[in-house]
Amino acid sequence: MPELRKDPVVGRWVIIAQERGKRPSDWGQESPFVQNGPCPFCPGNEDKTPPAILSDPEHKKNEWQVRVVPNKYPALQIEGSLKKRGEGLYDLMNGIGAHEVIIESPDHNSEFADYSVYQIANILTVYKNRIVDLKNDVRLKHILIFKNHGRAAGASLKHSHSQLIATPILPKRVQEELEGARSHFQLKERCVFCDIIYQELADGKRIVAENDSFVCLAPFAARFPYELWILPRDHFSHFEHIDGEQLIELAALLKDALERLSIVLASPPYNFVIHSYPIQEKQALDYHWHIEIIPQLTKVAGFEWGSGFYINPVAPELSAMELRDAAKTAL
Amino acid sequence: MPELRKDPVVGRWVIIAQERGKRPSDWGQESPFVQNGPCPFCPGNEDKTPPAILSDPEHKKNEWQVRVVPNKYPALQIEGSLKKRGEGLYDLMNGIGAHEVIIESPDHNSEFADYSVYQIANILTVYKNRIVDLKNDVRLKHILIFKNHGRAAGASLKHSHSQLIATPILPKRVQEELEGARSHFQLKERCVFCDIIYQELADGKRIVAENDSFVCLAPFAARFPYELWILPRDHFSHFEHIDGEQLIELAALLKDALERLSIVLASPPYNFVIHSYPIQEKQALDYHWHIEIIPQLTKVAGFEWGSGFYINPVAPELSAMELRDAAKTAL
Repeated sequence: MPELRKDPVVGRWVIIAQERGKRPSDWGQESPFVQNGPCPFCPGNEDKTPPAILSDPEHKKNEWQVRVVPNKYPALQIEGSLKKRGEGLYDLMNGIGAHEVIIESPDHNSEFADYSVYQIANILTVYKNRIVDLKNDVRLKHILIFKNHGRAAGASLKHSHSQLIATPILPKRVQEELEGARSHFQLKERCVFCDIIYQELADGKRIVAENDSFVCLAPFAARFPYELWILPRDHFSHFEHIDGEQLIELAALLKDALERLSIVLASPPYNFVIHSYPIQEKQALDYHWHIEIIPQLTKVAGFEWGSGFYINPVAPELSAMELRDAAKTAL
Repeated sequence: MPELRKDPVVGRWVIIAQERGKRPSDWGQESPFVQNGPCPFCPGNEDKTPPAILSDPEHKKNEWQVRVVPNKYPALQIEGSLKKRGEGLYDLMNGIGAHEVIIESPDHNSEFADYSVYQIANILTVYKNRIVDLKNDVRLKHILIFKNHGRAAGASLKHSHSQLIATPILPKRVQEELEGARSHFQLKERCVFCDIIYQELADGKRIVAENDSFVCLAPFAARFPYELWILPRDHFSHFEHIDGEQLIELAALLKDALERLSIVLASPPYNFVIHSYPIQEKQALDYHWHIEIIPQLTKVAGFEWGSGFYINPVAPELSAMELRDAAKTAL
């Protein structure tokens, strides 16, 4: 059973998931980005994964376009109880939660940025439906949906997939965002993200692309070179409240952003993460869901680990200009 | 001039240091760990670095054992004024500070863990002396000393070196540690790190090594597999208050810890960071300086970036046991 442990100094929770572990001798070398045996995510190999949680379209089990399965090496597990407890100074609880894999396509070789807008909208709909379903489990407080693309960004299998981790506590980074946004709202009675969108659209120099419902920009204090955020123009706190027309517009802008990164940076490894409001809470005025895209170009080293400070060698105005100028598909 | 920018949501400061930048086309591929031309850190090539800030021993300029130079591509610079200002919603200031490189040895091929205890004590003394000197600049609030060992840990030159970055603001991670330690002290009138040391020594299962003045342990909520902390047994808030006898003991335990990691993990890439109190503040009861050592074995991916949550596949009790059992040098 995985364990959740809290750092007694900074209050950060950590998942100790021994089940995912290897022996010390395995740690010495980088595992190469190769498949041992048949790909568990390819059609015909459905028995290599745990049984599917969702298969889309539902009525064609053998012709799925998107398939959701439990992670074979889960960081958290759904069965059991939290058993919150102390150990002297320390706080810990059982690692209850969900860890799912979204297999985005039956095609082994295609990449997220290559999918059609329709396919991406379909994947985003699956994300939404999984959140709506998992919300029914009141033990779960937050859901993070993310994608690791490429070995350097943490992907361990080539077949394109994203992941979902539902946690019984609010992660530290999420809590910081909520607190920051809340204190801005208390001061100004305005959403800080709405303020950012307003200022950036008026200014223009960090805007990369936009459509009727979404804006893609390089954030003012970007931690990483070519970091991008995609935000809905209108105020929404929960990603899962997105509707049909918006899903298509989000898919179009996400595809566009990934294509621009691919053109300027020659298909870089990247992560994208959906930042959304705690799932058990109602629509809120002080938080604005968004997607953060991080190309993995620099190494995080001692300075960043020790300080939480980041050194970004490319000003976001410059990266935005380059990405804006990149040839793009029709939106 | 580098720029410090504050994220308007979470309040995290970022250094935008264009001077370190490359062109977009450079970002596509990993730069290999090779020297172009002669090593700037080797004796005889002193003119390849900016002039030395410190050369040790002082009276033998051409036979230095440790040499401190300004970073050729500084993230922050010492000349100029902060010019704190706003840009609509955003806060920024000039990137004033210091960024120095500590060349640890004249030998191009030796590694930190291979140095004698005397050599390491000498390097630690240089760290201390640089802090004591930079403290005189009241614009500087915090100094972070860190080492990146190996390409995967962010080292860009092979010749073994550590770095110092002095910042005009308290970094976010440091502030979190101070706030956490302070709130523990307010509640208990005890230092949280003293409490950790007391509980860990009584328990023993996460202790890796110890001597008269220092303890080396795997932290209860370790973010990374085989993460280690070295803490002074007695309460001290500032690293730079360390004295002669303690320097030798710290050098011995640091060497011992790095050797154990090298044995168990086959010379892993690693970072170490000295966590110490803000330099302009007096000795404090609520904070305890320490060194954090992070072997770089896993990739930080979308989940960690999005949540600030870490998944550690090796329980610290297990890594402590393995490191404890590793053959060691005489302390």
